[in-house]
Parts: sequence; C-alpha cells; structure tokens
Amino acid sequence: MSLPFAQRLQNVETSAIRELFKLLGKPGIISFAGGFPDSAMFDVAGLRSAVGQALDTEPGAALQYGATEGHGPLRSGLAGFMQAKGVDCAPEGLIVTTGSQQALDLLAKVMIDEGDKVIVEGPTFLATIQCFRLYGAQVISAPVDEHGVQVDRLEQLITEHRPKLVYLIPTFGNPSGGLLSLARRKKVLELAARHQVLVVEDDPYGDLYFGEPPPPSLLALSSQVPGSRDWLAYCGSLSKVLSPGLRVGWLMAHAELLARATMCKQFSDAHTSTFAQATAAHYLQAGRMPATLDQVRRVYAQRAQAMGTALVRELGDAVSFTQPQGGLFFWARLTGAGGTLRDAGEFAKRAIAEGVAFVPGAPFYAQNPDASTFRLSFATADVDKIEEGVKRLARALA
Amino acid sequence: MSLPFAQRLQNVETSAIRELFKLLGKPGIISFAGGFPDSAMFDVAGLRSAVGQALDTEPGAALQYGATEGHGPLRSGLAGFMQAKGVDCAPEGLIVTTGSQQALDLLAKVMIDEGDKVIVEGPTFLATIQCFRLYGAQVISAPVDEHGVQVDRLEQLITEHRPKLVYLIPTFGNPSGGLLSLARRKKVLELAARHQVLVVEDDPYGDLYFGEPPPPSLLALSSQVPGSRDWLAYCGSLSKVLSPGLRVGWLMAHAELLARATMCKQFSDAHTSTFAQATAAHYLQAGRMPATLDQVRRVYAQRAQAMGTALVRELGDAVSFTQPQGGLFFWARLTGAGGTLRDAGEFAKRAIAEGVAFVPGAPFYAQNPDASTFRLSFATADVDKIEEGVKRLARALA
Repeated sequence: MSLPFAQRLQNVETSAIRELFKLLGKPGIISFAGGFPDSAMFDVAGLRSAVGQALDTEPGAALQYGATEGHGPLRSGLAGFMQAKGVDCAPEGLIVTTGSQQALDLLAKVMIDEGDKVIVEGPTFLATIQCFRLYGAQVISAPVDEHGVQVDRLEQLITEHRPKLVYLIPTFGNPSGGLLSLARRKKVLELAARHQVLVVEDDPYGDLYFGEPPPPSLLALSSQVPGSRDWLAYCGSLSKVLSPGLRVGWLMAHAELLARATMCKQFSDAHTSTFAQATAAHYLQAGRMPATLDQVRRVYAQRAQAMGTALVRELGDAVSFTQPQGGLFFWARLTGAGGTLRDAGEFAKRAIAEGVAFVPGAPFYAQNPDASTFRLSFATADVDKIEEGVKRLARALA
Repeated sequence: MSLPFAQRLQNVETSAIRELFKLLGKPGIISFAGGFPDSAMFDVAGLRSAVGQALDTEPGAALQYGATEGHGPLRSGLAGFMQAKGVDCAPEGLIVTTGSQQALDLLAKVMIDEGDKVIVEGPTFLATIQCFRLYGAQVISAPVDEHGVQVDRLEQLITEHRPKLVYLIPTFGNPSGGLLSLARRKKVLELAARHQVLVVEDDPYGDLYFGEPPPPSLLALSSQVPGSRDWLAYCGSLSKVLSPGLRVGWLMAHAELLARATMCKQFSDAHTSTFAQATAAHYLQAGRMPATLDQVRRVYAQRAQAMGTALVRELGDAVSFTQPQGGLFFWARLTGAGGTLRDAGEFAKRAIAEGVAFVPGAPFYAQNPDASTFRLSFATADVDKIEEGVKRLARALA
C-alpha cells in the first residue's frame, strides 16, 4: 500500500530530540536533557483538592462539552493571573488552549499560507519551527546575544522578508535561557507597530525567575507603546509552573485574531478538557499559586546556582555560558580551549557513554545551526545529581 | 489594523448551529438541539474515584508531560475496549487524541492538500465538513437512505472524483441516526480495498444501541475483507458514553498513517491531557464501563421511544422519520402533508417562539442541502419534557 499523504509532511520530520530521548532509559543516567519541570514539585495535594471541588460543585460543567473559548471560571482566573503581572486583561480577552503548543498551532493555522515567511530567534523552541513548517512557512532566524534578539538585525529582516509574524520567547527562552532587555522590549513593540507585523510572545517561563523579577512582558509593556497591542499575540501556560499534564495554556490577541483562532480550535479539538480546566480554575481560585511559584523559584534557583558553579569548576574555559536568571536551561558553547571538543553532537554521544545526557544545540536553529552549542536543563536533577552529572560532562570532554 | 490572515479561513465559517445555540438561554425552553449526552448520567462517583487513584498511584505521570501517542495504561485499556467489540487491536495500534475531533483534524492534516476531494455522507457531522474545508478540501456528498450510505453511488463518486478519503459514520450517525447495513458495510470495505481509497470510520455512537447490538464496525469486519484493514482509519471517543469533558478519543489506522498523525499531534498539542488520560485509564481498569453503558442505553432507549411515539401522535404525517435504533438523534423530514410547512429553517424559528429548539438539517449537507430536514436530540430531555416539547413542535407546525 502507499497512502497519498499531504505534501506538507515533507516540510518536517520528527524531532531529533525525540530520538535522543529514547536513549535516556539507560540505567543510572543523569539527565540534563529534558525540557520539563520536576514532577517532585507538583502540588499534588492542591490539585487533588481542586479536582474534588470541581466534581463536587460543578460536575456537569467539568465533565460536559464546554465553550470553545474556554471554561468561564478559568478564563476569569487566568485574566486575574495576567492582571497581577501588569497586563490589562478581561476574561474575554483570552481563549484557553490545549497547552501553549496549541496556541502556536492555532496562530499558524490562522496566519500562515504556504510559502509565507516567519521570523524566529536563532536558537528557538524546536516544536515552534516544526509547527510553523507544517503550515508551509519558510522560517527565518534572527540572531540573539546575551540581551536577547538583536533588534537592529530583526528590523532589517522584517524589512527584507515582510514576514507574517515574528515569534519570540523574550523571557528565559527555550533553549537559550536568555532575557530580552527592557530597552529591546520597547524597540520590539515599536517595530511591531511601525511595520504592522504580528509579534508572538511565548511566555511559559516568565514566572520562573530566581532573583529580581524580569522586565515586564511585551504584553504588559504594550500599553506604553502606542499601537503595539493590536500587533501582539501572547501565549501563556500553566505547564512549567503548575503541571504540564493539565494541558492548559492560553492565547491573548486582537479580538479579530482571537475569533478566528477560536473558529479553528472548534474544528481542532472542540475545546480543551473541561475536566482539566475546571480543576485549574479551582486551583487558581484557592489562591495556592503564589506559594507554588515561590517554591519552584526557590528550588530551580538552587539548582541553577549549583550547575553554574559546577560548570565553571569542572569544565573551566572549555565552555562559555551566561548564568541564567530564570527558567529551566543553561545554553552553553564549546570553546575548544586547550584543544577540547568543539562539536556538541559528538560531545552528547560521549556524554551518554559517561552516563549523562543533554541536548545538542543545532536542531534549535531554523537556519545556520551553531554546532558548538548545547542545552542543559537543571530542572529535574537535584543538587547532588547536578554536581555528579557535571563531573561526568568533564570526563566526556577530557 | 488589518491582519493578513491565511487564505484557508475563507473556506469556512463558524457553525450556524453555534449561532442558534445562543438562543437557547431563553427561560423555559425545551431543547432538542444539543449534540451532547445528558450530564445527569455522568458517573461522577466513578470518575472521582478514578482521578483519586491516578493522583494517589501515579501523580508524576498524571501531571507531567507524556508521550504524544498517549498514556500507556490508557492505550492498553482502550485496546481492551476495542477487543471486546471484536477488533484485533494492540495498544500500539492506536493513539490517544484530544477528543475524536482531533483525530479528524490530524487525518486532515496528514492527508489533505489544497484542492483535494473528500467524500462524506449527505448529511454528515458538520464539524467534519468544516475541519476538512480548513485544509482546503473540496467536500463531495454521497447520498444516504434508511440503510446508510448508498454504496453504488459511493463507488461512482469514488471513480469520478478519486478522493483522498471517504468519511462515514456508519452507526447511529450524527445527524442521521442511521445504521449502515451489514451487507453495505462489507461492500464499503471491498470498495476501500479495490479502489485503494482511505475510508474513515467515525464511531462515537456505536455503543449506544437500544435493543440488539448493531452490525460490527467496519474495523471489526475488515478481517473478513482481504486488504481492507490497511485502507481503514477508525475514530473512537469516550465523549458520548462516559464524558465529553475528558476530551479522550482515539485513532486507529495503518502504522504509516498513525506515525504521521503522531508527528502532527506533537506539533498540535504535544499530547492529550495526561490528567484526563490517567483518569480514564483508571476508570476503564476499575471495570465500571459495562454498567455505565447499560445505564445510558436504557435511559436513551426510553427517551427515543417516547419521542417516536409523541412525534407520530402529535405531528402525524406532517413529518417522516425512521425510528432510531441507537445514538442520540431523530432525523426527520417535513412532508408538507395537508399544506403544512416544508421549510425546516422556518419551522425552527416558529418552534423557538413556542418554546422548543432543534437544529434544521440544511447545514449538515456539504452539497445539495435538503431544506425539509431537521435533527431532534432526545438525549438531554426526560420523557415528560420530550412529550411537552413535541406538543410544542405540533403547535409550531399548526
């Protein structure tokens, strides 16, 4: 047999990272490879209580079909969550999505025609590149440095390519862990308004800061840059701060865009699980989120500190990196100092042999991959494991 | 501002039914309009117990990211559920989807290029037509009669149009409530194998039979028709039998198709809520499903009987219909006997004024709408409400 599959499938392939994950079953391996939060920190008691309340007080709503836009109480709860972060937001100003991955899929479905160009950071979230390519997008990379995307280059690329949208993870991005500076945030908003180009702000990590809070989101800042809010779409998620398994994300955008995303969602999955939505709504309502955030910030801050210290101690000038101020990731580069390895793909193979896993950086680039880069997650290993894992990295590099 | 939306949005519009649903808030209205099960029959205690077990025994898995293909224990549970219905099925032979709506979306994403033709029943599930059109499909209608799709006409259409796929709801379809006969089921499978055309069997209602079980699914019968299984995709759902709010459906198909659907799902929503999946898995494992099915079959059978009797008594020969043997719907036609109304759209407006709602049939046709048809759901009103509602229909028609 030979099924006549759609042409769009030729634009993508299953993630190289996914293949690497199959190796992680090896006994005793220490993994810095994941892109997920630590299960041990899930507030199981809080979620048990929330789902109990949902089933006690609104079993019909929690188990029945619901509005495509989202469960009313959750939209209210999420609007409140965004307001607390300085965003002027009504419940009707957001729709609930099945994780923020679906928000990206809906944005692509609503905006991208075959052959359209989109601009992303180089490096960026791998599943975004693939998601956009499935809709036929040509994905262009804008360079980043330690202050985030280089806005002058971004403006040149916008002028040159007239993209349908620009996709950014301004705060503790995956994989870069980087932070877009306040000055550049304002410039990005000015670019959006001046060039009338849709900017998509993906913000799953913004609440995971370790010291001072990061600059406000593009969305929060848009009130200071006339005309920019209309050209901004924002993707939020409970996955990194509460639980990925709920699959609760949200999309905020201009009403015209949101209405079309809702229509597309109607024919994609009808609505996000009301069972999960009602649970999340009761969780937010119970007021547990601030304590949960304090806890994850504290634990991830310790782990990030431990990893940074160990990397300097064990690997010295063979790697360079910027200490992350939040999020889940170190983004590092092999320098080749003293004749050490410069190829992160080869480094990853040797590391697996030494009993430690991470993800090489090349797949995170839509264009011009930098083969010396790699991503280390500090989220799921405790401090002892992190120190041991970094020692193994040093042995792999020796 | 004017956002440059994708061309595909011009192929569809938000469901006319959705607009009608906004009228249902009117106090005292009796609704036969819904396409959903009765919330009062949800096994809330069983689901509370199942989610409790999931959070007690596997909180990490239930709240963490999971495999795109689905949560292992649920795949096993669903494979067992299908085996009990005569289908040879391993856990790896299905993927879990966010409702069967997502299975349709993934099939479209994997199969349909702009301009491709697909064949559906006339009438068929409205969201399928819209979903396929969003991928640029040209949707062709095959006629149905009281024994389901007319297979001779279907073969002619396949030969004429060379469609990418044929979409059928063989058992108690929405909106027709119809049942494809055993003989025709075998012929459909022969057509699939002979013409090498993908047949999609959507089967959310097959378990909701009132007397004798219906003929086996196309999937179960495919073992009797050499070569047909490779050309068959099957969409299952827990929505109509357990709870729509879980958003748990599943897709079975040839391994090559399933692998591609999994890749597309990875970039659509990463995976279906593990929170909902683990809950469903524990529910199935607890063995509560047979009693749940007995209960919903018994209640819906009573309601279907009451509606059929009332329609004959109150509307006489002004309407024609086949008494459904399962599912949630009556599909009826205004005959115009004695000079009564023949336009179901006008009938629906008058009915709302009389305090009863239903859905006119025309939107369910991809081509050549029959304006005399309409759909009545007997699922959510009890017997007294059904009798009163049908009296109101008679007043609206008088």
